[in-house]
Amino acid sequence: MAASVTPPRGMRDFLPAEKARREHALGVIRGVYAAHGFDEIETPVMEDSSRLHAGLGGDNEKLAFAVMKRGLTGDDLARAAASGDALSLADLGLRYDLTVPLARFYATHRAALPPVFRSIQIAPVWRAERPQKGRYRQFVQCDIDIIGEAGALAELELLTATVATLDALGLSGCTIRLNDRRILAGILGSWGVPDELRERALITIDKLDKIGTGGVAAELAELGIVTGDADVAAELEALTNADWHLADRQASPTGQSVPPPSWLDGEAYADLLALRAALPDAAIEFDPTLVRGMGYYTGTIFEIAHPDYGYSLGGGGRYDGMIGRFLGQEVPACGFSIGFERIVDLLAVRDEERPRAVVLVYDADVPAARLLELKRELVASGSRVRLERRVKNLRALLDRVTADGFDAFAPVGAETTDAASLAFRDLG
Amino acid sequence: MAASVTPPRGMRDFLPAEKARREHALGVIRGVYAAHGFDEIETPVMEDSSRLHAGLGGDNEKLAFAVMKRGLTGDDLARAAASGDALSLADLGLRYDLTVPLARFYATHRAALPPVFRSIQIAPVWRAERPQKGRYRQFVQCDIDIIGEAGALAELELLTATVATLDALGLSGCTIRLNDRRILAGILGSWGVPDELRERALITIDKLDKIGTGGVAAELAELGIVTGDADVAAELEALTNADWHLADRQASPTGQSVPPPSWLDGEAYADLLALRAALPDAAIEFDPTLVRGMGYYTGTIFEIAHPDYGYSLGGGGRYDGMIGRFLGQEVPACGFSIGFERIVDLLAVRDEERPRAVVLVYDADVPAARLLELKRELVASGSRVRLERRVKNLRALLDRVTADGFDAFAPVGAETTDAASLAFRDLG
Repeated sequence: MAASVTPPRGMRDFLPAEKARREHALGVIRGVYAAHGFDEIETPVMEDSSRLHAGLGGDNEKLAFAVMKRGLTGDDLARAAASGDALSLADLGLRYDLTVPLARFYATHRAALPPVFRSIQIAPVWRAERPQKGRYRQFVQCDIDIIGEAGALAELELLTATVATLDALGLSGCTIRLNDRRILAGILGSWGVPDELRERALITIDKLDKIGTGGVAAELAELGIVTGDADVAAELEALTNADWHLADRQASPTGQSVPPPSWLDGEAYADLLALRAALPDAAIEFDPTLVRGMGYYTGTIFEIAHPDYGYSLGGGGRYDGMIGRFLGQEVPACGFSIGFERIVDLLAVRDEERPRAVVLVYDADVPAARLLELKRELVASGSRVRLERRVKNLRALLDRVTADGFDAFAPVGAETTDAASLAFRDLG
Repeated sequence: MAASVTPPRGMRDFLPAEKARREHALGVIRGVYAAHGFDEIETPVMEDSSRLHAGLGGDNEKLAFAVMKRGLTGDDLARAAASGDALSLADLGLRYDLTVPLARFYATHRAALPPVFRSIQIAPVWRAERPQKGRYRQFVQCDIDIIGEAGALAELELLTATVATLDALGLSGCTIRLNDRRILAGILGSWGVPDELRERALITIDKLDKIGTGGVAAELAELGIVTGDADVAAELEALTNADWHLADRQASPTGQSVPPPSWLDGEAYADLLALRAALPDAAIEFDPTLVRGMGYYTGTIFEIAHPDYGYSLGGGGRYDGMIGRFLGQEVPACGFSIGFERIVDLLAVRDEERPRAVVLVYDADVPAARLLELKRELVASGSRVRLERRVKNLRALLDRVTADGFDAFAPVGAETTDAASLAFRDLG
């Protein structure tokens, strides 16, 4: 019977060691972001269906878990059956990201927030995706956003805070990859891609890592997105192989002063140069083919890479059109999301960061009041204390508590009177 | 337009000050419980519908939010309409408590857990109740449970850890109110209440605070639960007015050695005396009319009261029949739940527990790189730093950041070169 009892499909339980690792990482992230002037907020896990399906979530809208209306009657069911519209039975849904709730939160509370609002959101989201390795139906997102700042200071504060957070997590040596949606638009324009196909074209370019320059060129042709005589594969090859310098207004692979490529959006490129100049110590790469999935980005986009890992540790960008949607007016915004579920697997809780953990192995005849008093003394002195009743196989018990992360144990017998008389022996 | 944008009915957003207060309290609770040897776990917010509706949740089962199946077809809808069973369209639900998920978790992972498992669960639950003051559809529960310990050490560790946690939260001076379901059963037996009506009878007795002894007696008679000639009102009056001592085996209002009341379950009472003896410093009251709502309790029940507040700060008890339900075997268990949503309103974050928070008020002509460098220096020295662009109405700005909890501000002009040259002035 026990074997069949599992959490819902695609969702995870966290046992103590894993939960401790997660809470430790979240504590570090909260602390560094707060020091950098960000303020944590929280919204309910559910939002009204109409907001989740307002077109701000892209493909993720289809993955929202729908929560059924309360007090459904037979009439509701009959109507839904007749119309074939199951979603008419749901008035709420679980959020699939933290950006739609942030837009709703900002519209609700704008009057109580500072003109430039720097938010932290650390919370689970749900997507009804086909579960697979490393992809879950419930996972934690870790977002910071700056709302109300149109200038590059927003990007700079986000990037600085994020790099500091990764450093604090022991992931130093990260590289920031930069691009701007306006530069991508320029490239697509140079290939003759009409405006209305650009978003679709970016979805294809975003697959560069997986299908290569040839694959992207083929897909753009197949979908009728590039129909002219541009040699897309060769141009993508040149773009990805170039060693961009972000060193002067004449962007070029060599860093020499040559005329900028015809597709380069001058204003966007100047913004990237300004970011580069304001972060002189950061490792920054310009990648004109960087897309970052979401359709809502309007300007700068960035991604954090680490030399030891083949995937990005997070990313973000400017999305000026979106936060103000529920408010009914445009509000500049820029955000960054740490890939928490990926990062947490890279971390180990360092021993020096947690209190000494000890086990008291007690005989059955020790009075409970004595055990409580010993425990109280040890807790008061800063230790974490677990009581374990002595068993015949003491070795197995000690192996288990060692695996559970305890540092030392002491036997407690009827003759033990106070904590000073405990004889601790190290474990492990 | 903005006025109509709200979170879902009965659910709350938390703005920065409130979120900080909540996270602070959760951090204290986590830390003390961990020191007392409890281990935090986490389960998904959803469980399979069949588990949520397995009869372990009492009345709360009716309040579960149902999550719709994925990929519903017209046939599913037609079948549901024909049967009138809306719930057949849901295969998952949001948990309404943390005990059902704990029972499921224990069945899933028992082999990886110690024989006596002390769990912490701090997480939201959802109930589709009619929203009213202080009652929300999403709220945080804070549970500790000891699974696998049949003896009183479980109750003692729970009570000790809980009182220590409340002390650490600044809520010292709490009283523990104790009773045992077996004692309640004895009282009901003395009134001639048949076994099958006892659970219903307890629901009525649980209303003592609200409807008084006369109201309880009347309801028990109306419902046909007490049909004999017991003067229930008078006996309840005597039970609640007595000054019980838990001082010897002869429980009596006076503490004198008199024969125990005929309804007193001797074994249960001996257990309470043992708890009293093992916690010599705790303020403990025996209340033979204490019920604690949930139907699953089987032994000791307890509640924490504070002299300053007219409601309990939490409660718990022994529920030996439940945790093993999904495992298919009986497992002793005892738990305690802190009333987090009530407690958090009583707390203030003490100033000395947070870092110094400063605001840099910068002129528009200060380069971004300079601002970032100043911020970096201050963060490195342990401060929390917010950047604010200077506005005409500086007074309004300073009032706002004071309200946001900042301690000092310094102006930054084009001439400011390093953090040492900043002239901080205290706020507030």
